Amino acid sequence: MEPNQDTVFNFSAGPAVLPKPVMLKAQQEFVNWHDLGSSVMEISHRSKPFIQVAKEAEQDLRDLLNIPDNYKVLFCQGGARAQFAAVPLNLLGESTKATYIDGGYWAMSAVKEAQKYCEIDLFDAKTEIDGKMAVKPASAWSIADDSAYVHFCPNETIDGIEINDLPVTDKPIVADMSSNILSKVIDVSKYGVIYAGAQKNIGPAGICIAIVRDDLLDLANDVLPSVLNYKILAEGESMFNTPPTFAWYLSGQVFKWLKDQGGVKAMEAVNRQKADLLYSAIDGSDFYRNNIHPANRSRMNIPFQLAKPELDATFLELAEAKGLTSLKGHRVVGGMRASIYNAMPLEGVQALVDFMREFEAQYA
Amino acid sequence: MEPNQDTVFNFSAGPAVLPKPVMLKAQQEFVNWHDLGSSVMEISHRSKPFIQVAKEAEQDLRDLLNIPDNYKVLFCQGGARAQFAAVPLNLLGESTKATYIDGGYWAMSAVKEAQKYCEIDLFDAKTEIDGKMAVKPASAWSIADDSAYVHFCPNETIDGIEINDLPVTDKPIVADMSSNILSKVIDVSKYGVIYAGAQKNIGPAGICIAIVRDDLLDLANDVLPSVLNYKILAEGESMFNTPPTFAWYLSGQVFKWLKDQGGVKAMEAVNRQKADLLYSAIDGSDFYRNNIHPANRSRMNIPFQLAKPELDATFLELAEAKGLTSLKGHRVVGGMRASIYNAMPLEGVQALVDFMREFEAQYA
Repeated sequence: MEPNQDTVFNFSAGPAVLPKPVMLKAQQEFVNWHDLGSSVMEISHRSKPFIQVAKEAEQDLRDLLNIPDNYKVLFCQGGARAQFAAVPLNLLGESTKATYIDGGYWAMSAVKEAQKYCEIDLFDAKTEIDGKMAVKPASAWSIADDSAYVHFCPNETIDGIEINDLPVTDKPIVADMSSNILSKVIDVSKYGVIYAGAQKNIGPAGICIAIVRDDLLDLANDVLPSVLNYKILAEGESMFNTPPTFAWYLSGQVFKWLKDQGGVKAMEAVNRQKADLLYSAIDGSDFYRNNIHPANRSRMNIPFQLAKPELDATFLELAEAKGLTSLKGHRVVGGMRASIYNAMPLEGVQALVDFMREFEAQYA
Repeated sequence: MEPNQDTVFNFSAGPAVLPKPVMLKAQQEFVNWHDLGSSVMEISHRSKPFIQVAKEAEQDLRDLLNIPDNYKVLFCQGGARAQFAAVPLNLLGESTKATYIDGGYWAMSAVKEAQKYCEIDLFDAKTEIDGKMAVKPASAWSIADDSAYVHFCPNETIDGIEINDLPVTDKPIVADMSSNILSKVIDVSKYGVIYAGAQKNIGPAGICIAIVRDDLLDLANDVLPSVLNYKILAEGESMFNTPPTFAWYLSGQVFKWLKDQGGVKAMEAVNRQKADLLYSAIDGSDFYRNNIHPANRSRMNIPFQLAKPELDATFLELAEAKGLTSLKGHRVVGGMRASIYNAMPLEGVQALVDFMREFEAQYA
């Protein structure tokens, strides 16, 4: 079966679904943007029309996250993995140590890169409560006195773990928010650096946003490539090198869509509703299972397993036929995973839950 | 006047015009690609359909440039400016010196970044012949015996200078081909590394291609961020981090279009025709002037000045009204510049030449 585009709900963990109205508008103006006779991707990043796109995107993001004036908003390349190197090389200064909180795969990926540049004070925050995976409360995290900063990843896409509290520290807090930025209200003023690859909650792959407190701009190591240097990017208004203009434009369109939806607070309410709906369906059945303690269940990435794993392939095949795509779990944990970022509508989760009930009725 | 999309010829230096058939196809399948009900940018880079896109793009590029099997083709992020750091950090090995040929602004931008990592053996290749800017023949370039590699930029977009010969050396030759890759036949086997930001002759901004001889993959410096490490990128098939999937897809579509046009040899013939047409118009008039010696005139970027610079603004305004856009010269040199990459059709250059004649008749 070839799914019809109107009925497909795409649960990809990333690159992920983008808001349909944004995609339709971008399609409509794809070859002739603003009646220029050119695509937005065919004009100079230094032209007035593109500068306008860039500035509006930044301002809309500032409005959405209520970003204080003493923070720079940088549009970078290289994704979050480039930031895994950029963070220590920008922030260590004279220091030789940083604290990393281990909450899962992505937190440890950041460690693997950072340990090339400094000593890692690693705190394993993972624990088990009532046989479920959980994260120790941030008040219990140990942080070395001589750390330059504290890094954590508040949403782990593979296990489906979300951390809802913040390190208790006077060090700069650095957060990899690639998978949950803009999904709920946060207090940016509590952070030193927030970074996020776009391809989950922002826009297409190929652009990464860094929100950097301006007192942290003067610490860069000499060996840091200029394209990853926060100060150089800030001084060049993220145009030190040619930025990924189409990805910047499309991210800006997503920001406008988010404002139209009522902003981050409104998205948080819908995201809560979506996650509650799916977790309730899982918890209300012996046929489905999620292994994360309720306190740390991600609202963005919801893995679930069947009581009969031998039915996984059938589940995925029938789901696909219903237009419920990309539900296969990460190879590390198997089973299923529904990624339900901002752009996934409530109806998509409802359709998934309906399908899960039908499937259970037939195969349990 | 609002130009109509069918009559606009966009001479932007980059991000630049893309082939119209490619843009129309991408628009048509923008929200529902391959009947998946999703955009190509909304699916996992590790999904079968995207892997197919990635592999075809690589193979088509290999076919177009006749890339030998002992070269890796890498799809990177961060543009050519990231390569300015990646090149020394990947290639120096135990060496502490590299030779850089100064042919203009971009060559020197690479020097500025590389000198953070090594001693620069700089050779100034710029010269003057008959009062015109020129480049000394490569046979006259001095190259230090203890250099790890020789770097040059064969096409300088700002001055409009092209270098058509190669360093005479047994060191690896590294070329920044951002502005002339795929515009003419080259012998890849003569190079150690060729890199090129996409936004001129390949695709949209946000992707950069590096073609690396495989014996150079084992020299990386420990401080090199992994996202710029050629070996890591090669081992991960350019998916060590989430690649810019839409830019990769669109670049692949450009490669297919190039094959449809008859490949690089056919493009070279058209590019020669386009450049000859414009240079002839300039040389055949006292009203227009180009300051580059014929031996080094770029076929991609053609700057020209009016005999009466006070008419620059009028020229640009009337050109724009005719749908001839982005002709303003770089701020460093002023005047006009026509960038005529592969995607600029011969009719576009003809329209420009016609306009130049009309303008001269009215204002000379």
